[in-house]
Amino acid sequence: MTTYDIAVIGGTGPQGKGLAYRWARHGHRVVLGSRSAERAQEAAEQITARVDGADVTGATNADAAAGADVVVLAVPYDGHDDLVASLAGPLAGKTVISCVNPLGFDKQGPYGLDVPGGSAAETAAALVPDATLVGAFHHVSAPSLWGDAEYLDHEDVLVCGDDQEAKAVAIELARAVTSRDGVDAGRLRIARQLEPWTAVLISINKRYKTRSGTSISGVPRS
Amino acid sequence: MTTYDIAVIGGTGPQGKGLAYRWARHGHRVVLGSRSAERAQEAAEQITARVDGADVTGATNADAAAGADVVVLAVPYDGHDDLVASLAGPLAGKTVISCVNPLGFDKQGPYGLDVPGGSAAETAAALVPDATLVGAFHHVSAPSLWGDAEYLDHEDVLVCGDDQEAKAVAIELARAVTSRDGVDAGRLRIARQLEPWTAVLISINKRYKTRSGTSISGVPRS
Repeated sequence: MTTYDIAVIGGTGPQGKGLAYRWARHGHRVVLGSRSAERAQEAAEQITARVDGADVTGATNADAAAGADVVVLAVPYDGHDDLVASLAGPLAGKTVISCVNPLGFDKQGPYGLDVPGGSAAETAAALVPDATLVGAFHHVSAPSLWGDAEYLDHEDVLVCGDDQEAKAVAIELARAVTSRDGVDAGRLRIARQLEPWTAVLISINKRYKTRSGTSISGVPRS
Repeated sequence: MTTYDIAVIGGTGPQGKGLAYRWARHGHRVVLGSRSAERAQEAAEQITARVDGADVTGATNADAAAGADVVVLAVPYDGHDDLVASLAGPLAGKTVISCVNPLGFDKQGPYGLDVPGGSAAETAAALVPDATLVGAFHHVSAPSLWGDAEYLDHEDVLVCGDDQEAKAVAIELARAVTSRDGVDAGRLRIARQLEPWTAVLISINKRYKTRSGTSISGVPRS
């Protein structure tokens, strides 16, 4: 297994903190990023309290991104574009994994927002052309990520992107979450389907009072 | 189990014929609809040749719809709106299940088309306000449906709609395909996510030379 230096932008939110916990638990080095370095450090301490020997620290988003090989965007869609644009310098030249879900909620339930750039991942790619964007980790639920189970082994991580090498990083990082490789779902444009699929899972969760997950059958994997 | 009288509009296409085969195999009465009653009858004979005692016949789309309790729209998206409008009379008052996938293909692979009405299912609902629309059966692959396996038991049928009673029909009809109830994925609007998800599966199929399927974990079912 390759050990990665991962920055999680939005690392104090439930999805970012949950993913960071999974990666730290399985041997990666993680820096949580937040607007406030102090809040990021507090979240890092919640993880180190749970994982013996975890290498997790907190920093501002810009400092976190600057020091990492792989940067994960785990921020709300609201404000996403401005935040990504502000990080264009530290993101340049890096593998950037977006798990951003542009969702709205109304009395009919959750729904996928119209995203002018097609998807959050494509928008980030357009805002930071020197970064290599991958879409992944949209569907794993935050409470499950933060739970005690060794792996979320009934779920799959779907990965999309236009660069095979960058996709391979996300496919490998999925192992720390689900116990197996992520599924290569194709080009970055497929993020237009992956991102709003989260609305389907949230809708199912409401009906069945459960935490649903998506798994893909018929895919041979390590 | 309730035995349904099902009309499959577009019943000579691979998806429609495959679903009809599954329903006939598990005891439902099916009428395949096509523009040509003769071609519909030929497709029906292909099913009766495979299933002892199958109650499957062929008819024009309008005649098939007129005689059924449940009408399944399994037509290409190209021409969908005109066809549905032309069937407004026989569809009125019925449970109508749309498994239409509005997809495009280019050198980047498959993608979800922009549908003016949001989704094919919502468009059909707008065109025939007296019908009760449900979206379901978008993701099961045609070759698997036409295969020999008793059930596609690694896959789930996701069902959406605004009428619980109509959704319950599709949830029950899923049993003939996957061996278990379909998953209630929420309101009809969720068809905006279900329909283009097929692009993700086709994209995965190309990468892995496989027939992928979607299953939903964490949902308690009969």
